Amino acid sequence: MDLETTTHSNIRFCEVDPLGIVWHGHYVKYMEDGREAFGKEYNLKYQDFYDAGLIVPIVKMDLNYKKEIKYGDSIKIVTRYVDSPAAKILFDYQIFNAATEELVTTGSTTQVFLDKKRQLQLAIPPMFGEWKRRWKIN
Amino acid sequence: MDLETTTHSNIRFCEVDPLGIVWHGHYVKYMEDGREAFGKEYNLKYQDFYDAGLIVPIVKMDLNYKKEIKYGDSIKIVTRYVDSPAAKILFDYQIFNAATEELVTTGSTTQVFLDKKRQLQLAIPPMFGEWKRRWKIN
Amino acid sequence: MDLETTTHSNIRFCEVDPLGIVWHGHYVKYMEDGREAFGKEYNLKYQDFYDAGLIVPIVKMDLNYKKEIKYGDSIKIVTRYVDSPAAKILFDYQIFNAATEELVTTGSTTQVFLDKKRQLQLAIPPMFGEWKRRWKIN
Amino acid sequence: MDLETTTHSNIRFCEVDPLGIVWHGHYVKYMEDGREAFGKEYNLKYQDFYDAGLIVPIVKMDLNYKKEIKYGDSIKIVTRYVDSPAAKILFDYQIFNAATEELVTTGSTTQVFLDKKRQLQLAIPPMFGEWKRRWKIN
Repeated sequence: MDLETTTHSNIRFCEVDPLGIVWHGHYVKYMEDGREAFGKEYNLKYQDFYDAGLIVPIVKMDLNYKKEIKYGDSIKIVTRYVDSPAAKILFDYQIFNAATEELVTTGSTTQVFLDKKRQLQLAIPPMFGEWKRRWKIN
Repeated sequence: MDLETTTHSNIRFCEVDPLGIVWHGHYVKYMEDGREAFGKEYNLKYQDFYDAGLIVPIVKMDLNYKKEIKYGDSIKIVTRYVDSPAAKILFDYQIFNAATEELVTTGSTTQVFLDKKRQLQLAIPPMFGEWKRRWKIN
Repeated sequence: MDLETTTHSNIRFCEVDPLGIVWHGHYVKYMEDGREAFGKEYNLKYQDFYDAGLIVPIVKMDLNYKKEIKYGDSIKIVTRYVDSPAAKILFDYQIFNAATEELVTTGSTTQVFLDKKRQLQLAIPPMFGEWKRRWKIN
Repeated sequence: MDLETTTHSNIRFCEVDPLGIVWHGHYVKYMEDGREAFGKEYNLKYQDFYDAGLIVPIVKMDLNYKKEIKYGDSIKIVTRYVDSPAAKILFDYQIFNAATEELVTTGSTTQVFLDKKRQLQLAIPPMFGEWKRRWKIN
């Protein structure tokens, strides 16, 4: 079963560059919007990690830009959990023009687990193992 | 004696809006650049406050936009400390086009003192009183 | 009759500063969110101005910060049109904590009318005069 | 011969997240700072492209985060041109902690050439071919 969340966002005037299109760096925020919506839907928020003594920084990110988004457009963000046997959290993102359903940008992120002393966790932390079982990922 | 600092900043492509001019909200960062440069020059950094058990949030800010700044322009930020008998920190800012010396934007900020429990300090904290004496402000 | 719009926004992780609260500069975006929602509701979008040969830059902005907003909070933005006999557009903003209804921040903006040659318009442009009549603002 | 540029940047307070480290999305701006510094040094600015009837949007970007950067740190950005036989512009980036010389983040970007009608150019545009010859890239 795929775990995924769909969320929507409007383009802000201040996110549009002199060429009239969304500046490429703002897509990092849209992916964060998607990841946060996923966290809310599947109980995997920053706070849930934090309560388990963990922080989950991003260590790797890539983006592929296929189409432009303009001021006034709305976007749809589909965030999909990608399972890994490693002590990592992987997400794929698809960002669509909400009106035309065109695929605008794809991306992915990799997060790792640090404890509160900022030590990298090489094994999957119990809290995340339980989360996987809860959602029947194995 | 006026305490003031002059610093410079470049305009980033991503700070320019579809009209080809710097989006008005980015000036808040330029004022922060000025305030930080002031803090470095006059030993009044966030860390100095923090080490004295204080945080100094902004409670009031205003900006007046007089001229446009375009992509490729550089700016000069003049940050001036404005003394007050109250338990507050006031700064005035003048942002110039570095090439033409035109005054582009003026602004001001007011900060207050909170202790680490986030309680507002109604009296000037000792650390800031000493700072004033150090710079012969009274 | 008061013309006002209410809109909602979530706080992004990247909008929260090291003190755990929303950085003061991000409220400029929330006010823009409010102004855009107003424009959509009352047909006063950037595009409407642009189609009439006008751009409406902000020349004055102020903010007053009363309470903190934290990561995970949601905000409610109330944007109110303030009529003026001058060739200006004035808005007042009230930003509330959506959960507690506490007033967090207030602000105001002033915009002027420029034609496409960037000449300041000293008289109210016909397009905006019609808009006022349409909404029975004397 | 490697074409590369070294530039420096300070970390802004507003770029630091609640964990006390630079939010991962801000590195996109640091890479842009590097690319712009490169453009100034080697006559390859957005304006140079624009004057030749070209825009050069980013179509691919990746980042690898190795170390944290904190508020108060300074960074050094090394931007290196990577030649390609295709009608593309490739850059590699290395971001260092300026004080410790630790490698903090690496990244790369790919840009393509569009003409002013936003048509993708499949052959290397004359202006860029000349630029390559000027810098003796094969």
